[in-house]
Amino acid sequence: MAKEKKPRRPRAETPRGFRDYFGAEVRARNAMLARVTEVYHAYGFDPLETSAVETVEALGKFLPDVDRPNEGVFAWKDEDEDWLALRYDLTAPLARVYAQFRRDLPLPYRRYAVGPVWRNEKPGPGRFRQFYQCDADTVGSGNVAADAEICGMLAEAMEAAGIARGDYLIRVNNRKVLNGVMEAAGVLDPADPEKDAHARGIVMRAIDKLDRLGTEGVAALLGAGRRDESGDFTRGAGLSGEQAAVIMGFMDARRGDGAATCARLRELVGASAAGTEGVAELERIAEFLDARGLGSERVVIDPSVVRGLGYYTGPVYEAELTFEILDDEGRKRQFGSVAGGGRYDDLVKRFTGEAVPACGVSVGVDRLLAALTAKGRAAVAEPGPVVVTVMDRDRMAGYQAMAAELRAAGIRAEVFLGSGNMARQMKYADQRGSAVAVVEGGDERARGVVQIKDLALGARLAAAMESHEDWKAQPAQREIARGDLVAEVRAMLAGQG
Amino acid sequence: MAKEKKPRRPRAETPRGFRDYFGAEVRARNAMLARVTEVYHAYGFDPLETSAVETVEALGKFLPDVDRPNEGVFAWKDEDEDWLALRYDLTAPLARVYAQFRRDLPLPYRRYAVGPVWRNEKPGPGRFRQFYQCDADTVGSGNVAADAEICGMLAEAMEAAGIARGDYLIRVNNRKVLNGVMEAAGVLDPADPEKDAHARGIVMRAIDKLDRLGTEGVAALLGAGRRDESGDFTRGAGLSGEQAAVIMGFMDARRGDGAATCARLRELVGASAAGTEGVAELERIAEFLDARGLGSERVVIDPSVVRGLGYYTGPVYEAELTFEILDDEGRKRQFGSVAGGGRYDDLVKRFTGEAVPACGVSVGVDRLLAALTAKGRAAVAEPGPVVVTVMDRDRMAGYQAMAAELRAAGIRAEVFLGSGNMARQMKYADQRGSAVAVVEGGDERARGVVQIKDLALGARLAAAMESHEDWKAQPAQREIARGDLVAEVRAMLAGQG
Repeated sequence: MAKEKKPRRPRAETPRGFRDYFGAEVRARNAMLARVTEVYHAYGFDPLETSAVETVEALGKFLPDVDRPNEGVFAWKDEDEDWLALRYDLTAPLARVYAQFRRDLPLPYRRYAVGPVWRNEKPGPGRFRQFYQCDADTVGSGNVAADAEICGMLAEAMEAAGIARGDYLIRVNNRKVLNGVMEAAGVLDPADPEKDAHARGIVMRAIDKLDRLGTEGVAALLGAGRRDESGDFTRGAGLSGEQAAVIMGFMDARRGDGAATCARLRELVGASAAGTEGVAELERIAEFLDARGLGSERVVIDPSVVRGLGYYTGPVYEAELTFEILDDEGRKRQFGSVAGGGRYDDLVKRFTGEAVPACGVSVGVDRLLAALTAKGRAAVAEPGPVVVTVMDRDRMAGYQAMAAELRAAGIRAEVFLGSGNMARQMKYADQRGSAVAVVEGGDERARGVVQIKDLALGARLAAAMESHEDWKAQPAQREIARGDLVAEVRAMLAGQG
Repeated sequence: MAKEKKPRRPRAETPRGFRDYFGAEVRARNAMLARVTEVYHAYGFDPLETSAVETVEALGKFLPDVDRPNEGVFAWKDEDEDWLALRYDLTAPLARVYAQFRRDLPLPYRRYAVGPVWRNEKPGPGRFRQFYQCDADTVGSGNVAADAEICGMLAEAMEAAGIARGDYLIRVNNRKVLNGVMEAAGVLDPADPEKDAHARGIVMRAIDKLDRLGTEGVAALLGAGRRDESGDFTRGAGLSGEQAAVIMGFMDARRGDGAATCARLRELVGASAAGTEGVAELERIAEFLDARGLGSERVVIDPSVVRGLGYYTGPVYEAELTFEILDDEGRKRQFGSVAGGGRYDDLVKRFTGEAVPACGVSVGVDRLLAALTAKGRAAVAEPGPVVVTVMDRDRMAGYQAMAAELRAAGIRAEVFLGSGNMARQMKYADQRGSAVAVVEGGDERARGVVQIKDLALGARLAAAMESHEDWKAQPAQREIARGDLVAEVRAMLAGQG
């Protein structure tokens, strides 16, 4: 007879690259998102929640990260032969919604969206295949006032979330200016835009690596090429020293205020029509920001912002946190970017053939929450619920009534519903982070009293005690009249606050 | 030469069975969920947000709906050959989380979860392939006090959401009692539980159809079988008249109060050990509910609750809305169930081999929101933002400043960022549902005034007007000093309230 095979038990694991969020973390994130979206809402943006699943054809391929051109989506074939996929961002679904409902939507259409997105890419430390985004976009306005509005709104959202003024900076740049600089450097001919496309690709990727490689590394990539520490050689764009200097000048064009920076950029783009238009857009944005009183301690025109330039078609912006944190190796480094966006004018055209101007911003929710946590500004974890212990299982109904009384008074409370003696129940209350426990045994019930334990005080005292006798004599427990339960628990919680 | 093919444009459509949620609907749902989860939270439940994607082996096959045994999940093969899938409910992921993190989680573990789930089933009117659930479960307590707690919490959650007392009823039953009744009817032998499994399956499905088929239809299915209106014949369970009477008696066992109902059930289960245990559980639940003051106008023991009996192992409960609405054909019908749950003791065992008792409830979010909307109790759609119109594009910075002033005073406001004349802008404000528009042209600016339009009043007046001259003379527009903008807009909004 064949040996009977024991069925293998399923592994209790999230798939690789996915994670769960527990308790205080969920509440802190929800509180942060509520504060951010209330700012979006005040600016006239309306919420939109699209389905997580889209057809692959509707999603298209517009992943914004230059560094990861091959990253994919999670996709499968539906029974009616359509390919479906999980959305990889909140912008592609917006383009689909706008094309689908454009007859019913206001024009311009301002919307915000919050939700998970999915990327089928290699997971790594701190890099997950599902993460939250929190976006705001304006579809149907070609006016750079819309970009300026989003920059101002982003500054307000940062402060609403809990990032103090001075700890963040909204940096604004313009893709058209880079195109102008490319023209001035002789690697872009507006009459023949395909020419030198390969060299421009290398330039773009080099610029994007400024943070990591520094000025010298980028200069090498603009020229003949660069050999990294491992000895690998990356071919450069082959620009002459003079050409490279124009590009490097672009990244280094930031001056004391927006007007001075724009003046410097105007020099750099020379006769380029695109470049001149881009500089004029930045000038208008600077003017709007001034009128709103958003000074350079909050929003700056900064040509060194290069992230996403390859994806956007006009102004680009990012929110950078300027304070330092310690990285995994204990080195100080600047926290960096927590939000980015810009103008993208071609997404809706895919569907309708009609060009629809649009711009928007996406907040990296997990990074912003990490920043708030680093600054101690995330929603503080509240203590756990008051735990009503169970000394006598036949009295369960009475314990339930106590918890209900406490809740009716606005105090979070629960009855211990597991099994185990008082030590086990106290351990449970400790694990819950509870501040108060309630005890009523047969003796207490007969006398119309209950014991309430100050678990926070108890923990402090226990740390200082030497013997079990000390523990039993500790003042962290008090006997009170049953009728005073709510008032006494409330006073104990207030005393801990 | 081959004709050049024009690339086909992607269709701007959600996949079949998926939908988007806009504006007020998103806010109404979020407000409702916040109220419900605050009740869960007050009871000591902690939030948990699991990943949307699970391995297929972790999900298993525990779909609770007897009627749809073949419904599927959305699944695909990962690059490392694991099958992944979107979660189809929030309970299967909870079992996985509990098994994965059981060493770190408190015991019992009370958690709530809110989020979309996905079902790969045929979509239909009002039936989508992505929908929200809002669950609360207690893992690790075998005490029916946990079930009673959830029933009481569900009643509170209904009232917090906006369902008035008297408009809902939490109905409680017990799977073990049904098993006892099956024993008494001679279709379940505890010594040989496989015997008569087929007949019991038919009985279960018949009971589940009571709502649709009525007493007579169910009786036919318990006996020889039933021919429906189309002439199709469904084979019955083949029970004798006497056997069927026992089953029918179970569904009809509800009496004036919990004690009387339990007494009747005790007669029906006869000598069955399982049945007797089930009745005792219901008695304890009734006792807990009485102690909490939850009378039969809120929670009742009701053996006619059969939904989900096939899935659960002990007590089952559902929240039913008792008011009537008009269905699609204009007929009155009771709104019906908006939440259901019960005790399920085997989900964690799949992973660990260890039985872990658990119970919980799931709220059908879309149905509850539909009920609130039907009762006019969903969050009322607020008016759209104040629209600052653009008469002079060179004055954009000034208009932005006006909107910012209004927002700083807590008034939702935006500048019109599209293109078009005043009529177009008024149409936009109308489409936004705005209550107030602000107009400042060159003349007003020179005089230091602005016009504010009461759009709500204007719409009422316009409805009563006959000529364009009436329209121009309408009192819905007022000239105010620029410096009084915030105060005057606030007064106008208050006057409309």
